[in-house]
Amino acid sequence: MSLRPRAPTHAADSRYDVVGIGNAIVDVLVRADDSFLTEHGLTKGAMTLIDAARAEQLYAAMGPARECSGGSAANTIAALASIGAACAFIGKVRDDQLGQVFAHDIRALGVAFDTAPAPLGAPTARCLIFVTPDAQRTMQTYLGVSVDLGPEDIELKLIADSKITYLEGYLWDPPAAKEAFRKAARAANAAGRLVALSLSDPFCVERHRAEFRALVERHVDLLFANEEEIKSLYQVATFDEALQKVRGHCRVAALTRSAKGAVVVAGDEVHVIDAQPVGRVVDTTGAGDAFAAGFLYGFTHDFDLARAARAGAIAAAEVIGHVGARPEAPLKSLIADRLGAI
Amino acid sequence: MSLRPRAPTHAADSRYDVVGIGNAIVDVLVRADDSFLTEHGLTKGAMTLIDAARAEQLYAAMGPARECSGGSAANTIAALASIGAACAFIGKVRDDQLGQVFAHDIRALGVAFDTAPAPLGAPTARCLIFVTPDAQRTMQTYLGVSVDLGPEDIELKLIADSKITYLEGYLWDPPAAKEAFRKAARAANAAGRLVALSLSDPFCVERHRAEFRALVERHVDLLFANEEEIKSLYQVATFDEALQKVRGHCRVAALTRSAKGAVVVAGDEVHVIDAQPVGRVVDTTGAGDAFAAGFLYGFTHDFDLARAARAGAIAAAEVIGHVGARPEAPLKSLIADRLGAI
Repeated sequence: MSLRPRAPTHAADSRYDVVGIGNAIVDVLVRADDSFLTEHGLTKGAMTLIDAARAEQLYAAMGPARECSGGSAANTIAALASIGAACAFIGKVRDDQLGQVFAHDIRALGVAFDTAPAPLGAPTARCLIFVTPDAQRTMQTYLGVSVDLGPEDIELKLIADSKITYLEGYLWDPPAAKEAFRKAARAANAAGRLVALSLSDPFCVERHRAEFRALVERHVDLLFANEEEIKSLYQVATFDEALQKVRGHCRVAALTRSAKGAVVVAGDEVHVIDAQPVGRVVDTTGAGDAFAAGFLYGFTHDFDLARAARAGAIAAAEVIGHVGARPEAPLKSLIADRLGAI
Repeated sequence: MSLRPRAPTHAADSRYDVVGIGNAIVDVLVRADDSFLTEHGLTKGAMTLIDAARAEQLYAAMGPARECSGGSAANTIAALASIGAACAFIGKVRDDQLGQVFAHDIRALGVAFDTAPAPLGAPTARCLIFVTPDAQRTMQTYLGVSVDLGPEDIELKLIADSKITYLEGYLWDPPAAKEAFRKAARAANAAGRLVALSLSDPFCVERHRAEFRALVERHVDLLFANEEEIKSLYQVATFDEALQKVRGHCRVAALTRSAKGAVVVAGDEVHVIDAQPVGRVVDTTGAGDAFAAGFLYGFTHDFDLARAARAGAIAAAEVIGHVGARPEAPLKSLIADRLGAI
């Protein structure tokens, strides 16, 4: 297999370090027992797409919740901005109250978010997140108006102005978003910029395996995946088999393994990084998103790969120590405390 | 001063222990530094009413937030229901997304909430809450559609079916809500039920002092106030002066003093209750509301006054240990662990 010619890592005069593209989602977080998951037939640990009626039904059955902005790529961009990267985000909200919440929260971090909110159609997307006592999260996503994100929302200048275009695998679910994704990836390649992809979820990989493989070979420079996702992508039984498969398919693959840490592979270079110790794991929602943020910060700020992965591990450790997918503590100083000036 | 004849504490065949009436508000919680408060001219520790334009302006200036159902009386009713009391709530939301959030969260606790949402008018009320590093909260409330709560929303049968009608002082701000308040208090008195009032906030007391004093003398059986509020009500300099003033004005006054605990006075009976030790005070939002919940649970479940106040202190300690005004841990078992079977 031959690799296509790669763009330089840091093309000159970029305005943004990273532009993220993803479903713009508000999380509705609730603590739940395993019996709730069983009773309602929820697949533990996974992200399942649901329709409006099912969302209503589950919402009516669940306990009091709190609302926080979420979305996988959006979480990564929010955390990246907290660390100090210059970021932009593309995603579709309605002009409703949850859409205002989403837009406020990401802009409040200094992220450029200019996708026009939809004046009509389904409401802003929400993800019902059930956090069980073992800190595992089970996600039920009603995509709402996110499915209206399309190629017309991809501003080519923004892509060309960003060192990295970061895409979430979940975009592959709504058909128009898939086209938006393709347009963005092509534009980034054409502008000599890098394309990063997070595989999002093993079930998402299962839904789109063939296309994801082609994508990784043709367009993706930086791949983020956890153990289950990368094993699903290559349909292999062990982590090591997946590691050998992915090697050479993209410039860098950053593979996360929960408490076992992370492995970064880039051609002949392989780094095995320990997880950051955590006092108590409270809620694993957003752990992968935060890892990607720390890693991307390092990658766009001249860290070597091992140090970038350590920044990722520090960011992930912060997020799993509390309920909610976005950092609550100042990530920049947490990372600087452990890795030295950043 | 003569006391009007009092109703029996526990009238027979009540369907609810407590019906609460208050502004139906969604809290927008954010961590902020003192410099933010200074820069935006916010009165630290107080609840200030703001209009829609000011709410927009502050929201645009503040950091990423989380949304949780709030409202003073609503917080008390939510906590009461978590402990195991049978509760109802009356308050006005719009038929918008934040209104749905408010209704969901209180119903999810088993609270009967049947006030018709407004199909028109201002949006559901929100309270921007700035939590400073000293755990103090500064509240900026946009009342939105809450001002449309009126006497027509007070269902007389519900009042007659509840042992206690619990009212927040904040209702005195919107004129129609004041009428609703008066109607409810009269109905409770007429049905031989008890009326409880929380003074809400020292600035609220200042706005309505004369009327609050008349109310306490004529209608209120159970008064909840913190030290600043009760001092403001009687315009005295020391807590003890306020204590001597309030004695005899209502059947029971439960006065909270933050870390100094609480004092309960009922005719000749006076109890001085220590605060419950707390690991770390994170956010004092809702401390008074939670105290009232614990106390009211005890009061409606045959606790003596000292034990009811201890239940209040336990509930308050839970709420100040995390960000957000409503309990996150199971209050019923926390109280039972410390006070024995409840």
